[in-house]
Amino acid sequence: MWIKNAWYVAAWASEISEDAILARTYLGTPVILYRTGEGEAVALEDRCCHRHAPLSKGRLEGSDVRCMYHGLKFAPTGECIEIPGEARVPKQMKVQTFPLVEKDKLLWIWLGDAALADAGEIVDLPYLDSPDWRYTEGFIHYDANYQLIADNLLDFTHLAYVHEKTFGTDLAGQLRPEVEITAFGIRINHVWNNDTPPPMIRMAGGFSGMIDRWNLCDWHVRGNILLMEAGSMQPGMGGHTSDRAGAIEFRHVSIQTPETENTANYFFVHSHNFALDDDQISDGIFDTVCVAFEEDRDIIGAQQRIIDLDPSRPMIAAPFDGPLIHIRNKIDKIIEQEQASGRIAAE
Amino acid sequence: MWIKNAWYVAAWASEISEDAILARTYLGTPVILYRTGEGEAVALEDRCCHRHAPLSKGRLEGSDVRCMYHGLKFAPTGECIEIPGEARVPKQMKVQTFPLVEKDKLLWIWLGDAALADAGEIVDLPYLDSPDWRYTEGFIHYDANYQLIADNLLDFTHLAYVHEKTFGTDLAGQLRPEVEITAFGIRINHVWNNDTPPPMIRMAGGFSGMIDRWNLCDWHVRGNILLMEAGSMQPGMGGHTSDRAGAIEFRHVSIQTPETENTANYFFVHSHNFALDDDQISDGIFDTVCVAFEEDRDIIGAQQRIIDLDPSRPMIAAPFDGPLIHIRNKIDKIIEQEQASGRIAAE
Amino acid sequence: MWIKNAWYVAAWASEISEDAILARTYLGTPVILYRTGEGEAVALEDRCCHRHAPLSKGRLEGSDVRCMYHGLKFAPTGECIEIPGEARVPKQMKVQTFPLVEKDKLLWIWLGDAALADAGEIVDLPYLDSPDWRYTEGFIHYDANYQLIADNLLDFTHLAYVHEKTFGTDLAGQLRPEVEITAFGIRINHVWNNDTPPPMIRMAGGFSGMIDRWNLCDWHVRGNILLMEAGSMQPGMGGHTSDRAGAIEFRHVSIQTPETENTANYFFVHSHNFALDDDQISDGIFDTVCVAFEEDRDIIGAQQRIIDLDPSRPMIAAPFDGPLIHIRNKIDKIIEQEQASGRIAAE
Repeated sequence: MWIKNAWYVAAWASEISEDAILARTYLGTPVILYRTGEGEAVALEDRCCHRHAPLSKGRLEGSDVRCMYHGLKFAPTGECIEIPGEARVPKQMKVQTFPLVEKDKLLWIWLGDAALADAGEIVDLPYLDSPDWRYTEGFIHYDANYQLIADNLLDFTHLAYVHEKTFGTDLAGQLRPEVEITAFGIRINHVWNNDTPPPMIRMAGGFSGMIDRWNLCDWHVRGNILLMEAGSMQPGMGGHTSDRAGAIEFRHVSIQTPETENTANYFFVHSHNFALDDDQISDGIFDTVCVAFEEDRDIIGAQQRIIDLDPSRPMIAAPFDGPLIHIRNKIDKIIEQEQASGRIAAE
Repeated sequence: MWIKNAWYVAAWASEISEDAILARTYLGTPVILYRTGEGEAVALEDRCCHRHAPLSKGRLEGSDVRCMYHGLKFAPTGECIEIPGEARVPKQMKVQTFPLVEKDKLLWIWLGDAALADAGEIVDLPYLDSPDWRYTEGFIHYDANYQLIADNLLDFTHLAYVHEKTFGTDLAGQLRPEVEITAFGIRINHVWNNDTPPPMIRMAGGFSGMIDRWNLCDWHVRGNILLMEAGSMQPGMGGHTSDRAGAIEFRHVSIQTPETENTANYFFVHSHNFALDDDQISDGIFDTVCVAFEEDRDIIGAQQRIIDLDPSRPMIAAPFDGPLIHIRNKIDKIIEQEQASGRIAAE
Repeated sequence: MWIKNAWYVAAWASEISEDAILARTYLGTPVILYRTGEGEAVALEDRCCHRHAPLSKGRLEGSDVRCMYHGLKFAPTGECIEIPGEARVPKQMKVQTFPLVEKDKLLWIWLGDAALADAGEIVDLPYLDSPDWRYTEGFIHYDANYQLIADNLLDFTHLAYVHEKTFGTDLAGQLRPEVEITAFGIRINHVWNNDTPPPMIRMAGGFSGMIDRWNLCDWHVRGNILLMEAGSMQPGMGGHTSDRAGAIEFRHVSIQTPETENTANYFFVHSHNFALDDDQISDGIFDTVCVAFEEDRDIIGAQQRIIDLDPSRPMIAAPFDGPLIHIRNKIDKIIEQEQASGRIAAE
């Protein structure tokens, strides 16, 4: 179960071109992505309407794609524009298309009722397209339901245990963030004042003593999007509420797009606004995040396998589970509303 | 779903002997094939009636097979003729047998109501047992429903796309065959007059200029059997309707026997009546067919996987889909009649 | 389907320690086993009650285990004794525990209603903890339902066929044992008087001529336990009913603990009371048993796959199937009674 009427991240814009077809599955629907001759990004169902051969085995011909089973050619609109040996093409010969928007280096797809798709609702991530921020485009695939990944990101107590060798500090398991319910989902702010800097932060920021640190998380329920501002600066200067002079900062993005009930695509960055020309620091940041994300994937995959043994077993909430329970309830409610409205089909 | 009361190809006659058991599954039923001491081909269910151990792990003892779990011995009639340590054998101790006929180098099995099995209805393939025709016995296994393979063989427009590197010509996607509904299924005749010969045909037939070519296909709905006459000769002499003087010809056979709902066994030959002593040409013909059949298997396997994602999605017919739709409807109708008659059980 | 209220073997006592967690699944329930600081064996469900992460990925801290997802710590009683960052722990925060008893070098687990667990009902296997008997601890995993393994052990006619290269003798298929229905299940006694000794027995026992042999089997329906006394001695001295002077003897144990509907854990020993200091003989006995058990696993796994093709097909009983049918009926009856009583849940 998932929200249908939402913008989900389909791919990094850099993943597609005019020369090759990218095949991925979103919300159980197989999709191909490519660019037209004009560079416009296109999303078609990966299923020829004729005999259901995958278009991902097809051939790009300019802006069109030809199914390589019986040669039917489809325009980016999904319309069949050629059936070999036939003078005319039946009107109903049409492949499903999906709204696809390129914004902030990402491709955003809409699998629900296309009439409801408003590109203005796509969340802004300007630092993904800014010279002031540097990052490596991250992607991993999960053998787990997307909500288990969301749970993980909505509760940082796990840092102390899952990531004891990477991100974790003993404090992470102890501190409780400020939580605020918002229109888009939930805001979760972690602030550590006058704390010891982890080694990488000390080095990168040139800090010699204690620091003030913050992790300010906005979780968007539609699209499963975590936006996190993380920063460190000299203590006693107001921290994240000040003008952040001398601070080093990160903008973290983690986005899950459900693939099937038990698998997900996961896009992420951990961009930084310092050491912009230092490959070693930049690669080191990305590598650390990747190691930590493997730690998450390991425990979440194992959790999924235990749940699969008996999905009916209830979970018992811990006091710090408020945010993830709020988001799960919100998703359930939106799904319920969507189903009641009947406006969930792609066409 | 499949027709039960039909002769299906079980194996090449050369695949079985008195010395070894061949195990294969037909229409969801596991079967063993072997030869008696007199060389007669036998088909028994691959399931000892006692505790359901597979007889394919058993031992041939003359014309009989002994289950190697508890030692029960079965005659080619399926009757248990020995239970170790017991003086008498209960009458009901019997393994299922299936009518099996050896004809034209093939073994034909009947999985339906044995009382309806009439060996006279097995299609004639005399060129499989003739010194005038040369071929290699072909077999491949498919991870796809047999009807998807039949669809493929009932529509040659795919030659231009799936086989663009082997059999395909641009014309294949354009030309429309003559189609005739028949009692056995459907006849589909492709004729190209005054066409350029493909290289192999030019060489093998010694043609210097244009040729007349034909592909005359008979599709038998019972047994999923394609018989194709293919030939090439000097143009303007009447082509396939003449006495075919100077022609080089092929007899192609493609037969699918359903294994399970989503897998099939596939037997084929591409026999030729020229260059009978030329191993290189003969092997070249077989190798080309094998490469082309891998191309089919690749796209059909991919098609099956897309269909499996949502089997309820409708397909949209192209104008040239008439033959395959006719055959699918005919199969559905026969299955319906069989189920109404109740005469489908093996015994 | 399986009996819930029974002691099942969970592991060899030597398999667990204070330093590592052993994860295994019994009756579909994932379980961890470990020892407390005092050496006491503990069984907890391998599912943190909080978010269902597996405790087998957790960390032992003295006698307790900490879930390494969010750091909840559990005592051997299953009670959560620490939630990081929280002053108090909700009472309902508790992991399922299971009665676990260490006896005769084995760990015995109770998955049913704990109120019914009476350690006094665990079968006695004193020779597993005696200097007079030597053995290697055996364990194999089966891709088959436990009842198919029980069937195999309840009928030795298979020795002549499955084990023709190891244990088998032609006689095994012919001879019929004495069978006695008992309170615990069934007793099956095989006695061969004045028989030729197999080579290993001749060597080990120093026999120069014929011998009397016996295989006395007790099958316990609760726990799926085979206890077999096997022995050989000079003929005409009364055999197993005498004082067995000069006999060489084995105590065989075979125990199946269902893992899932189609998999099982299998514990076994083939202990001997002779050549106690001879590593070569002792290893040779164990190796022979292992080879023979692979033969069983091969045919039983194949049998399971045939059954899975159509589980509705009836089996036809052979005259010697009485014991296995009796045990299957007894299991069915106990399961029926358990379900009627409603006393099957672990807590």
